[in-house]
Amino acid sequence: MLTEKTGGIKSLLFGGLVTFLRICLFKVIATGPIPEHIAFIMDGNRRYAKKHNFAEGSGHKAGYSSLVSMLGHCYELGVKYVTVYAFSIDNFKRRPDIVKFLMDLMLEKIELLLGEEGLVNQYGLRIYFIGNLKLLSEPVRAAVEKVMKATENNKRAVLLVCMPYTSTDEIVHAVKQSCENKRREIQTPVATKLANGASEGVEVMMELRKLANINLVDVEKHMYMGVAPDPDILIRSSGETRLSNFLLWQTANCPLYSPAALWPELDIRHLVWAVLNFQRSYPYLEKKKQKKISE
Amino acid sequence: MLTEKTGGIKSLLFGGLVTFLRICLFKVIATGPIPEHIAFIMDGNRRYAKKHNFAEGSGHKAGYSSLVSMLGHCYELGVKYVTVYAFSIDNFKRRPDIVKFLMDLMLEKIELLLGEEGLVNQYGLRIYFIGNLKLLSEPVRAAVEKVMKATENNKRAVLLVCMPYTSTDEIVHAVKQSCENKRREIQTPVATKLANGASEGVEVMMELRKLANINLVDVEKHMYMGVAPDPDILIRSSGETRLSNFLLWQTANCPLYSPAALWPELDIRHLVWAVLNFQRSYPYLEKKKQKKISE
Repeated sequence: MLTEKTGGIKSLLFGGLVTFLRICLFKVIATGPIPEHIAFIMDGNRRYAKKHNFAEGSGHKAGYSSLVSMLGHCYELGVKYVTVYAFSIDNFKRRPDIVKFLMDLMLEKIELLLGEEGLVNQYGLRIYFIGNLKLLSEPVRAAVEKVMKATENNKRAVLLVCMPYTSTDEIVHAVKQSCENKRREIQTPVATKLANGASEGVEVMMELRKLANINLVDVEKHMYMGVAPDPDILIRSSGETRLSNFLLWQTANCPLYSPAALWPELDIRHLVWAVLNFQRSYPYLEKKKQKKISE
Repeated sequence: MLTEKTGGIKSLLFGGLVTFLRICLFKVIATGPIPEHIAFIMDGNRRYAKKHNFAEGSGHKAGYSSLVSMLGHCYELGVKYVTVYAFSIDNFKRRPDIVKFLMDLMLEKIELLLGEEGLVNQYGLRIYFIGNLKLLSEPVRAAVEKVMKATENNKRAVLLVCMPYTSTDEIVHAVKQSCENKRREIQTPVATKLANGASEGVEVMMELRKLANINLVDVEKHMYMGVAPDPDILIRSSGETRLSNFLLWQTANCPLYSPAALWPELDIRHLVWAVLNFQRSYPYLEKKKQKKISE
């Protein structure tokens, strides 16, 4: 007869066995190259709630649990950087009550991350929030800044939460910053020339010409995502193969893997499959990278 | 007994039947929405040659035939814009003899396009070459400019040949152009202010500040691809799901379809499948687009 106690022991043993098998599997996989950076588009939370007739918000809650276990798998596997698309700038166009719900959920989960048993302590995580933070409401912005400050000395692993983010916004921001820097560079010479009585303005115009000298390196330097190397794998759940304005600049040479599973259904099998595919094409992609560096 | 003549008639009849069936199929598909713009990454020409033990260049020749029939299918189906990734800026790093072979092939095929029975006449094509044309050798640049000039009044359909192109190069080019335009905008006011004796330079500095006011619209206006709407479908052959620095900016919301077939093996079935998938997700994507416009 199965008593509560023996049931508990059995489930404990089973849990231990699963963990043991996972560790073994990861050790086998880690004999090959491990991606340094994996990015996720967490698509399908709302569809998951609909599919199971759950309340609208439950999909996102299930999505958060899925995120926590996926992050655990990634860091255990030895992936250093994980980026997630948490909130697009376009999401602000959703119903105000949905936006509010998502922001409240974010605030609640941020506290959990920093808690004693949270991911931050467990994996020595440094957390960045990537995007146009000025668009966040005051309490959320304060919370994300607190998290970034609190984790800034952690070095073992990195989590990048894109929120509120779109790639085109990131690129335009980087361009503006590059222009602003160029302007600052010429400001002093222009002022000096004016003070010296450059009344013809020819010399001032010569300085102005430097402004169009913005290049790839300038723009790249000012990308929000400049704190991490480019992703090696991009995974989008729900079988969608669009990038939805996520890391367009950084995924130019990164394969997209889009399993049919909704985000809360995504599990270790999908991750393992993506990493095995990465290992298969690793020699080819590495050769391409080396070629680029040697140029 | 099958004589040469009856064989000829049979194959003519069979060819006619295939064309008839294709027209019927296209008519059925055209009852749904048709993508306005399809973009292709023509991957796998060299692998095709290897697979069949052909000489290295034969893969690209087979690839060209495949392109011609794919273009025919697209335009017959009612797609107005087709973009192909013909030559990446990174391709210049290939062996010089391969680069030369590809450029010679390009010159030869450009002549064919313009010929009496070529695609240009058949579909009333306007052809654009998209990318950093300054990187092309003199005869190739002259040829592509001739084609663009010769077809500039055609309106029925458009072919965009990306060559030599990368998306990051396109974005940086657009940024430089935007900066240059801003510089030109402030040049006259600055000169006037200097002439009026703005010796303190405060007013000049105020003008300089405008330089950092570059926005999304400025950058978009200067994209090489600004001559066409964003693609509705991106198809990459050979099962690869990377974008390889192709149309990163323009495919933010465009699904990627990556059949396993190598480029010379890609045929009407893959196109039909991609279009049917487009039609399936059309209502959702259109709703998203409308939302964006109404903002």
